[in-house]
Amino acid sequence: MTNLIQEKVQQAVAVLQEQNIDLWITFVRETRAGGDPMLPLLFGTDLTWPSALLISKNGERIAIVGHYEADTAQNTQAFSQVIDYHTSVREVLKDSVARLDPQRIAINTSKNDTFADGLTHGMYQLLREYLGEPYAERLTSAEAIVSAVRGRKTAEELRRIRKAVHSAEEIYADTFDFVQVGQTEREIAAFMQAQTQARGLELAWEALACPAVNSGPDSPVGHAAPTDIRVEPGHILHFDFGVMEEEYCSDIQRVMYLLRPGESQAPEPVQRGFETIMKSVQAAMKAIKPGALGHQVDAAARTTVTDAGYPEYMYGTGHHMGRSVHDGAGMLGPLWEKYGEMPNVPLEVGHVYTIEPGLAVEGYGYIGIEEDIVVTQTGAEFLSTPQTELILKG
Amino acid sequence: MTNLIQEKVQQAVAVLQEQNIDLWITFVRETRAGGDPMLPLLFGTDLTWPSALLISKNGERIAIVGHYEADTAQNTQAFSQVIDYHTSVREVLKDSVARLDPQRIAINTSKNDTFADGLTHGMYQLLREYLGEPYAERLTSAEAIVSAVRGRKTAEELRRIRKAVHSAEEIYADTFDFVQVGQTEREIAAFMQAQTQARGLELAWEALACPAVNSGPDSPVGHAAPTDIRVEPGHILHFDFGVMEEEYCSDIQRVMYLLRPGESQAPEPVQRGFETIMKSVQAAMKAIKPGALGHQVDAAARTTVTDAGYPEYMYGTGHHMGRSVHDGAGMLGPLWEKYGEMPNVPLEVGHVYTIEPGLAVEGYGYIGIEEDIVVTQTGAEFLSTPQTELILKG
Repeated sequence: MTNLIQEKVQQAVAVLQEQNIDLWITFVRETRAGGDPMLPLLFGTDLTWPSALLISKNGERIAIVGHYEADTAQNTQAFSQVIDYHTSVREVLKDSVARLDPQRIAINTSKNDTFADGLTHGMYQLLREYLGEPYAERLTSAEAIVSAVRGRKTAEELRRIRKAVHSAEEIYADTFDFVQVGQTEREIAAFMQAQTQARGLELAWEALACPAVNSGPDSPVGHAAPTDIRVEPGHILHFDFGVMEEEYCSDIQRVMYLLRPGESQAPEPVQRGFETIMKSVQAAMKAIKPGALGHQVDAAARTTVTDAGYPEYMYGTGHHMGRSVHDGAGMLGPLWEKYGEMPNVPLEVGHVYTIEPGLAVEGYGYIGIEEDIVVTQTGAEFLSTPQTELILKG
Repeated sequence: MTNLIQEKVQQAVAVLQEQNIDLWITFVRETRAGGDPMLPLLFGTDLTWPSALLISKNGERIAIVGHYEADTAQNTQAFSQVIDYHTSVREVLKDSVARLDPQRIAINTSKNDTFADGLTHGMYQLLREYLGEPYAERLTSAEAIVSAVRGRKTAEELRRIRKAVHSAEEIYADTFDFVQVGQTEREIAAFMQAQTQARGLELAWEALACPAVNSGPDSPVGHAAPTDIRVEPGHILHFDFGVMEEEYCSDIQRVMYLLRPGESQAPEPVQRGFETIMKSVQAAMKAIKPGALGHQVDAAARTTVTDAGYPEYMYGTGHHMGRSVHDGAGMLGPLWEKYGEMPNVPLEVGHVYTIEPGLAVEGYGYIGIEEDIVVTQTGAEFLSTPQTELILKG
């Protein structure tokens, strides 16, 4: 049976052929301290000493690693050759590259996208020094390779993501039962974290803000920690939560409304806000198809909100999701400078995105729905079960 | 009470004054995917959108972050100013730098040390673009700043490291009781991991190889996973293990010998190997003092082993330990190319290092002892309780 590392490394060879790049070098060291976002996909564990993963268009897959990590490299079963060294990676790296004699060498550097930008500036300088002429002048960005390898999910990756989505939804169901007027945001967050732990899962992002829980109009929305604000009747209660299961993530937002005495449904402004966001999600879904650009999908969702008279949300409509909860390269976002060229990356079959528009309802709180979807031949399919009704609690 | 982030950011201001650097910029984005190794010390949590932490010689500490992370930045209580933005960090960053008008700007780039090399090549290019002239030409490496800020442990950091060392030693004590002939390396590793979890602690490095467990002469030594090799009489049993407690690490190696029928002590070659490594640790301890260079300490330990007739170990004698188990910048290592300039960084009071020489005893297994130490005014002090006798088990 092929393991996931083998699958992704083989996929990379096909992508190099498609893009006509001769060689892709992932060059890392001491990855425990930070590391290249591609390493989990191409190697699966950390590397200590300067190490180079060489994947070539002709199918060679070479891991050059420090001596004490040669066994680990062999154990991945993903590399056709493992070369180890004792005191310097320079010569073995140079020799391997000279033998392959590539015309174009992709490296993990990108002004646009973190996931294609794992090479540090110091390591970039070292790599140029080590390669020397003529290879140092043949370097190009691996952005499009990274986009394809991370973005095009294999069947196994999709299976894992579906599992992570399903688990998050189960924890949400338990949480909707658990929630009571009088609880603090912090207490609700602790419940969800305990449920995650009880299932042997990890949170999809840092515990400080996973989940985010926002009750009522005064709760700070964003990547902030839950507060001691208490759930009260008349509050919109908003959640942002995901788990990591078998190393893959889910990321889902849900909203409840806490009925006031005498209410049997949410007041009109709350209901209208909810329906606007629901329609915004649907508009994004309709715009998604292979070849569409991220900013086109973003615009579809965004204008649904602004056309309904609400202010524009000041973040992108959605992001890749996979090994990392915010994955890359590319996104469903507007052409704002902070997003670089990411919103211009075309959507492809097998891409997994979140769709997460949002708006505030004055006096009640924040409404954000976030669904997880996969791009298909004909459009898009929900991975999460979309929220189509406000969850009400008395 | 000052929190640890406040403590380290304040310490950074003092270091800038000492080194006469006007401004230090840590420039990051999507740090969940990798991130700058300085961020945990200077900010404490992840940042999503392009963000700049500016620390100036005159004491200004400015966090420029995306709008939805402004609260998180405020909550650190470490910054004198928090500036947030919606669509691009460019103008706010440029304005702040222009106002401070620094002559020398340190950035996290280093060919030598991972911990001072958190700036990716793509972010380096963006930063230069954003700063423009004249500031883009005033950039310099923050290597010496990172070395001081990471290396000089505060009282609170030392307290946490001592705790992590103590917990690892307790787990070791339980493990020595637990070990029996016939167990596999994997079973012993699972026991140590379960003990770690039961105490609510994390492993100091990835679970695959924490602990490393090597029984007998055929076990692959290095950063490899424990195997199904069984503990047998006549084996040296070697461990490499550490925990992370309150975000700080320990890293300790220990050795046992499994007595054969009729033996009441280890055979001469095993005993001699053990004593050589013990002396090698002592030689390193004697060489450690403020101002000594890493490669001098390395040579003291290394020659003790080679003078006794054993082959030289092909790794550095020791590394910084702290927030990361392999911390930086600097190390106790030989002047090999893979270590760059790291072995030339002078030792300072408050640096915490491992000392971990090793050798193989033919037919018996691998002997490695690893102690954790802190540099003092007059020399060095053990943080771990040094192993001075082989642990024997019948």
